[in-house]
Amino acid sequence: MKNAVVLLSGGMDSATVLAIAHQQGYQCYTLSVDYGQRHHAELAAAHNLAESLGAHEHKVIKIDLTSFGGSALTDDKISVSQQPTEGIPLTYVPARNTIMLSLALAWAEVLNSQDIFIGVNAVDYSGYPDCRPAYIEAFEHMANLATKAAVEGRNLVVHAPLLHMSKAEIIQQGHLLGVDFSRTVSCYQADVNGRACGVCDACRLRRAGFAAAGVNDPTIYVS
Amino acid sequence: MKNAVVLLSGGMDSATVLAIAHQQGYQCYTLSVDYGQRHHAELAAAHNLAESLGAHEHKVIKIDLTSFGGSALTDDKISVSQQPTEGIPLTYVPARNTIMLSLALAWAEVLNSQDIFIGVNAVDYSGYPDCRPAYIEAFEHMANLATKAAVEGRNLVVHAPLLHMSKAEIIQQGHLLGVDFSRTVSCYQADVNGRACGVCDACRLRRAGFAAAGVNDPTIYVS
Repeated sequence: MKNAVVLLSGGMDSATVLAIAHQQGYQCYTLSVDYGQRHHAELAAAHNLAESLGAHEHKVIKIDLTSFGGSALTDDKISVSQQPTEGIPLTYVPARNTIMLSLALAWAEVLNSQDIFIGVNAVDYSGYPDCRPAYIEAFEHMANLATKAAVEGRNLVVHAPLLHMSKAEIIQQGHLLGVDFSRTVSCYQADVNGRACGVCDACRLRRAGFAAAGVNDPTIYVS
Repeated sequence: MKNAVVLLSGGMDSATVLAIAHQQGYQCYTLSVDYGQRHHAELAAAHNLAESLGAHEHKVIKIDLTSFGGSALTDDKISVSQQPTEGIPLTYVPARNTIMLSLALAWAEVLNSQDIFIGVNAVDYSGYPDCRPAYIEAFEHMANLATKAAVEGRNLVVHAPLLHMSKAEIIQQGHLLGVDFSRTVSCYQADVNGRACGVCDACRLRRAGFAAAGVNDPTIYVS
């Protein structure tokens, strides 16, 4: 059984990715990053999802990105927008996926794993630059120059199975694989119980996705 | 005055890099990473060096890489070798430079900086893969696809001014720029006061470097 490191945020995309990796026969090591995110509830969700979706081991790494700030998710003084915005939204966290993939790379090397899974999506997404195909390719290329494993011929693959799927397709895929979406948290300002605001970008994409997928949306939206 | 993020470990290479960036006219923001390293004394050295070499701000980010282990620097059960070894040594820390550069990338973006400095060296070094020119180029390429700054046309440059220098040349350069090497810690198993073991790879490279440079070595070696 091959080991894979799966980045698990606690949202619906990474939960679906975990289900996909599991179905593909990988022994999954899930990694969440506690970076001081506003929607801290997603970390509890990740923990539950790891358990319910058969992860072999779940790890949480803490890095205080509020020390840098620069995002509505890591700086209390910047508000999450209640309306759709032009361009890259304020919830963009500088270098977040690069930091997370770097940590996954470290763990993968220690586990003798050549496979990292990440739930990035470049269709129904918030326009974050580090969710684009060219970025993922460039990370993989860099990673294969970075490690002792790569020098020894064990190259790494970054799997992004949702990259070209619509939100509705992701939901249908997850539903098919038995993901319990009521356990996932997407909302950027979810309360401690995981209840969603209903108005942020993440909520809007989630709501529209369930509607388009024809799957019941179990989310409790506050508005 | 342009801002630069300078990765500062507390060793002689990164101290020299800080002096170079400062001399080039950058306002320097120094970043150290407390990753649970065995030679924790380097963090106190970094703090002192930041102050004495005119850093504008010094930040320490904490990430517990002992949670992954896999290196003599992050796992107490793996010893630092007392003899030169073949190949990549046990002190290699999986994905360390990638994690550090990712954090520097995040901070650079928040500071509106397009310049990161790192003290990697591919001549008199320990053979770590993430110190090679091709790796640095690949990281820079990836970084320029990762950020909002890059999307908006503010591309990032990863400066590695020591890349092709010998240890002796680094010491001469640092000496010329007024780096007080007595404040730097290279040893992988330095004690809390920064005293060096004298037998690990880092000590061997350092000792030989000072001898070749013809500069007085202020290091206190235990053996």
